[in-house]
Amino acid sequence: MIEILRLGHRIVRDKRISTHLALVGRAFGADKFILCGQKDDVILKTVNSVVSRFGGSYEIVYEKDYIKYLKEKKKKGFKIVHLTMYGLSFKKNIKKLKGDFVLVLGGEKVPPEIYELADYNLSVTNQPHSEVAALGVFLDNYFSGEYKKFDGKIRIKPSVKGKEFY
Amino acid sequence: MIEILRLGHRIVRDKRISTHLALVGRAFGADKFILCGQKDDVILKTVNSVVSRFGGSYEIVYEKDYIKYLKEKKKKGFKIVHLTMYGLSFKKNIKKLKGDFVLVLGGEKVPPEIYELADYNLSVTNQPHSEVAALGVFLDNYFSGEYKKFDGKIRIKPSVKGKEFY
Repeated sequence: MIEILRLGHRIVRDKRISTHLALVGRAFGADKFILCGQKDDVILKTVNSVVSRFGGSYEIVYEKDYIKYLKEKKKKGFKIVHLTMYGLSFKKNIKKLKGDFVLVLGGEKVPPEIYELADYNLSVTNQPHSEVAALGVFLDNYFSGEYKKFDGKIRIKPSVKGKEFY
Repeated sequence: MIEILRLGHRIVRDKRISTHLALVGRAFGADKFILCGQKDDVILKTVNSVVSRFGGSYEIVYEKDYIKYLKEKKKKGFKIVHLTMYGLSFKKNIKKLKGDFVLVLGGEKVPPEIYELADYNLSVTNQPHSEVAALGVFLDNYFSGEYKKFDGKIRIKPSVKGKEFY
């Protein structure tokens, strides 16, 4: 079980970034997305609409008290993995992860508590770039590029040129 | 030489996505970013500011006529690689890439000409997610996770908890 927890969402500024994060989580094999920060029903609707058309059992929820949420997950045996440009190399540490975990992705300012609560603070390069790319690269490496199969109403057929469907 | 060409930028809607794309290109080892669509000096400033602080020789330019730009690159021996959810698996085709190429990343609607002009239309999963994650995953695989070293004024020291610098 892999969950993605997105901290500090702001409705106007982060609308597309948070939506991309949620969809990346789904496409690369995570099971659940937890939106924190400002409550935003539009993102939940958008993601649920993708799930209903493209398939899979991805769940998305809003959670106000993310510290409580993470503490409860820890009690249930989940590891907390915080992706941050300040962390240790994910490449060197990803093999340590066995079993369930929550991947925490920051907004602009991550509270110090998160660094403490995390079992691992890991970086996908120590350069500034994007939490969306960090998430994709992390999950691609975790699953060794073996992508989940989805059996949705819409199924794209890989094509040399143009757009094809099954 | 690896260039990233971002199609169809819209100032308000795409500000953060296009900035993330440019920064992902830099962090994962590309050499140049070409912004197309609406001209947006803020993104150029933001990216140049990151380069001046974090190092490297990444270039960012605006280009109005992207078809002309791509045709000229082809004449110079660059391959054109278009990342699209409709394309063939990038995992199965990435090893074919030798030498210089331009990675083309779409906005909402990609003109059919791009599919024709591209030497390869490749997908990073055939699911809807994010051009930002697609770019990161593609470059991480291309460079086999060997990240470029930057020698900037700001250098982050990988840390177990918190934020450290060299």
